[in-house]
Amino acid sequence: MTGWLDALERLSGSRTKAGLTRQLRPRPADDLVVDLAGNDYLGLSAHPEVVAASAAALTAYGLGATGSRLVRGSTDAHADLESDLADFLGAESALVFSSGYLANLAAVRGATAVCDLIVSDAYNHASLIDGCKISGRRTIVTPHNDPAAVATILDAHPGQPAVVVTESVFSVDGDLAHLPELHAVTSSRGALLLIDDAHALGILGPAGAGGVAAAGLAGKSDVIVTATLSKSLGGAGGVVAGPAPFIRHLIDTGRTFIYDTALPPAVVAGVHRSLALVRDADDRRTVLTTRASETVTRLTAAGFPVDHPAAAVLSVLAPGPEAAVAWAADCRDRGVAVGCFRPPSTPDGTSRLRLTLNAGVPDEAFTRALDVIVECAP
Amino acid sequence: MTGWLDALERLSGSRTKAGLTRQLRPRPADDLVVDLAGNDYLGLSAHPEVVAASAAALTAYGLGATGSRLVRGSTDAHADLESDLADFLGAESALVFSSGYLANLAAVRGATAVCDLIVSDAYNHASLIDGCKISGRRTIVTPHNDPAAVATILDAHPGQPAVVVTESVFSVDGDLAHLPELHAVTSSRGALLLIDDAHALGILGPAGAGGVAAAGLAGKSDVIVTATLSKSLGGAGGVVAGPAPFIRHLIDTGRTFIYDTALPPAVVAGVHRSLALVRDADDRRTVLTTRASETVTRLTAAGFPVDHPAAAVLSVLAPGPEAAVAWAADCRDRGVAVGCFRPPSTPDGTSRLRLTLNAGVPDEAFTRALDVIVECAP
Ligand SMILES: Cc1ncc(COP(=O)(O)O)c(C=O)c1O
Ligand SMILES: Cc1ncc(COP(=O)(O)O)c(C=O)c1O
Repeated sequence: MTGWLDALERLSGSRTKAGLTRQLRPRPADDLVVDLAGNDYLGLSAHPEVVAASAAALTAYGLGATGSRLVRGSTDAHADLESDLADFLGAESALVFSSGYLANLAAVRGATAVCDLIVSDAYNHASLIDGCKISGRRTIVTPHNDPAAVATILDAHPGQPAVVVTESVFSVDGDLAHLPELHAVTSSRGALLLIDDAHALGILGPAGAGGVAAAGLAGKSDVIVTATLSKSLGGAGGVVAGPAPFIRHLIDTGRTFIYDTALPPAVVAGVHRSLALVRDADDRRTVLTTRASETVTRLTAAGFPVDHPAAAVLSVLAPGPEAAVAWAADCRDRGVAVGCFRPPSTPDGTSRLRLTLNAGVPDEAFTRALDVIVECAP
Repeated sequence: MTGWLDALERLSGSRTKAGLTRQLRPRPADDLVVDLAGNDYLGLSAHPEVVAASAAALTAYGLGATGSRLVRGSTDAHADLESDLADFLGAESALVFSSGYLANLAAVRGATAVCDLIVSDAYNHASLIDGCKISGRRTIVTPHNDPAAVATILDAHPGQPAVVVTESVFSVDGDLAHLPELHAVTSSRGALLLIDDAHALGILGPAGAGGVAAAGLAGKSDVIVTATLSKSLGGAGGVVAGPAPFIRHLIDTGRTFIYDTALPPAVVAGVHRSLALVRDADDRRTVLTTRASETVTRLTAAGFPVDHPAAAVLSVLAPGPEAAVAWAADCRDRGVAVGCFRPPSTPDGTSRLRLTLNAGVPDEAFTRALDVIVECAP
């Protein structure tokens, strides 16, 4: 059967025509590029204390966790991180997964053990969408960031236990969900609220406790929080936090928890150290706030109006997919990495640059990077 | 809404009644338990060269990959590992994922871009089953390890492009799929064959190249291979290998590839070093063969007939879920970790101990562990 290869080539041809092919560009360890594309918002991934904590655990435990969490994969490092994450997020209990993606699959599917209906924001992350899909439950997609639309749908399904799924800070555009309004809608109607705090953790809220904490929803008995350990925490892995009975449900039944090798202890230990630094990183968060204003001012003045970011992600509209790719490529040629999002990564069919504010980049490098972005504009 | 917590408590109560609750037991770094439960088959997870390679990359790159593979997450370490994995597996191309679970989701869903029908072995791993589910494609489950049954199904769907999904060595029982027969069935009918080589990689085949290589199927244009980097390679992560157009398809469209933070460079580098050791580990593979015979002889003599393992996993039938749990707990109390699998982790509703042969365990400790298992038998 080589027919399948021909069929794949045809699909590839269509993607090429639509300007939707993607290219891996491995970077060296001594990469000199200014990073306004990654999600290491607080610049902690290479912090000496994070690296040292990770290296110590590597020596103590070896590289792999050697098994799933319920077999050999749970170490003291996992338990310690989970208890601190629960505390940080103000939740009763927290469970670490090997990725934010697998955490989201478990959280959404887990919620449908007691919910018949999912209401999902149109701009939700792929992992949340896949969670809806894999749950097999009826899913209604709502217009982006529209609590009133959510209310209408819940009202149209009285007596049907529902879970409403959203991000706190949306991953592509960096805008903030109307969490207090959304929670008012869900709690008054007996629905659960599941919030992916991936892009707000470490950035918003007291001591960086996240967008859920910032909205005053931490520890609510009808709120489930998920997050990744790979962005402001500078590592890898994911977490689900919420009421203890829900976490217990995931331990007993969560397929992406039970049947997946645990996060390596060295990653766990590095993230744990990072968590302590995050709590103490108001200085770095101030840098992000300053850079957000600087970026908005500079880009708007150059004719690219951008919204003030809720956290550390900004989105700049490009005329089309090819223009976006060319813009990002020109920046890269001049030593500045920026993200480039095209359909199907953008939910609304537009193409954009995605800029991340990285507190680890030196001031002059950051300002120069903004110059480069403006000078390379289409 | 606290009704959901009550509903969760009710579900938890039913699990308790059925003996199906699970408990996390974190282990310390200086754990003295003899490990016959993990999947570190060759004992490489704590190999000094693996730890050193990982530590060096940690210093060079920092902890996290800081982004998805297509944004900032691809490093030279990823590219180097991918090219060596492709070479090792005899495939045209290979792509590293952050877990074997996410690799399987991508591979199965990716195959359905050109296949309308999935034929899946009844004993397939949760990640493969979830891959079928998330693809949304019609899936027919076949009796375990039954190429004739697969043939019957393919013949009943002429002209419908199909992908047949199997493991090479099955994860719970450790038995070997009839791969040559299965490939004869698929290739003669124009179907694809997707093989999860997780438990054979490093153990079977020339230089440990896996079960696909052992069956003479490496590099076939109608075969897709997946594996995890978390078992004999002692690390974490997953891989999909196959014809270049398929890998290209995954880079362009694989949601669990595109929307997931890359595997940390330090994990990648450790696994890469491990791969070199695996290729050179015929001595460790000989230890496994010897231990397989020793285990079969000892358990059979004690009245627990077990099949000779195809690789490094053995399954021992227990009278029921509680007996299996008690057996494993008694072993653990005496310093021996063994796996305990109950429904829904076992596809046939039985409960068993799962023993893994770990070449990293010293000889006397291994023999003593077998004594303990026999002495604790129900
Ligand atoms: C909002 C959101 N949720 C979940 C994830 C997945 O997390 P991870 O990369 O740890 O799999 C990401 C990005 O990667 C994300 O942006
Ligand atoms: C057969 C099989 N496939 C896939 C996986 C998933 O791999 P990972 O643990 O790297 O997610 C496992 C076990 O974990 C497995 O046993």
